Amino acid sequence: MKKPFGSPGKASGLILRIGQCLFSTASIGVMTSASGFSTVTAFCYLIASMGLQVLWSFGLACLDMHALRFHKDLHNHIIVSLFVVGDWVIATLSLAAACSSAGVMVLFSKDTNICKTDPKLSCNMFPISISFAFASWFLLSISSYVMLWLVASI
Amino acid sequence: MKKPFGSPGKASGLILRIGQCLFSTASIGVMTSASGFSTVTAFCYLIASMGLQVLWSFGLACLDMHALRFHKDLHNHIIVSLFVVGDWVIATLSLAAACSSAGVMVLFSKDTNICKTDPKLSCNMFPISISFAFASWFLLSISSYVMLWLVASI
Repeated sequence: MKKPFGSPGKASGLILRIGQCLFSTASIGVMTSASGFSTVTAFCYLIASMGLQVLWSFGLACLDMHALRFHKDLHNHIIVSLFVVGDWVIATLSLAAACSSAGVMVLFSKDTNICKTDPKLSCNMFPISISFAFASWFLLSISSYVMLWLVASI
Repeated sequence: MKKPFGSPGKASGLILRIGQCLFSTASIGVMTSASGFSTVTAFCYLIASMGLQVLWSFGLACLDMHALRFHKDLHNHIIVSLFVVGDWVIATLSLAAACSSAGVMVLFSKDTNICKTDPKLSCNMFPISISFAFASWFLLSISSYVMLWLVASI
């Protein structure tokens, strides 16, 4: 069977996983360096969700590296089924976290003047962190579709 | 080929579409009857997204009814591919809208005391509308997975 772009054990799959790790880590880094994030539940949830994504993507990146190094075949039905469930659950949580943070950010900067009246909030940092979270979710959603495609066709 | 649960042209598919329509309409109805919703962008986006879902699900429910009434087979690759793209786009938009509204609602009721200080906001109505939106998204996500499964196996 031809292995599609981004499938486990391929260089493209490894690049996708490394990209997910980098964007999630950047999102956590920017959010935790912004002052006032801990007063908003949505921003704390974003950090938790991105942390989970870093762990998951880093684990799968290591597995991809191992498969590439020792020419292992990861296209086993049980392995791919496990990957697909994990990918979909974490992708849904990441999208939920990014969207709830974006909703709060729009409220802060557009619907109210909280950003102007509260100098303790780093309102210029939050959108950067949320953008990284969306980029990370986008890469994870590509992996998720590829996995679902694989599990349907194996 | 055996038609799975919730596939187009089956009674289970029609029930899923009618459920999506009902929950989306209920979400719009509760949100528009709550005072102060128009001051929050996330709540306005929820109404727009649920409106789009009502239109989409109602159209597909009519098609399902037509297929059931005249015993038509909708398991054509082009038709199912169109359904799968529409379903996934609208499911992603619905989840984004529900999550951004939920993020704002948690901010109003837990992180700040906006709900207590601003009597113009119907803070008891917003969670009901958001719950209906999540229920509607959940039913749409079932349809989306069935469609993706069908398009991968046709």
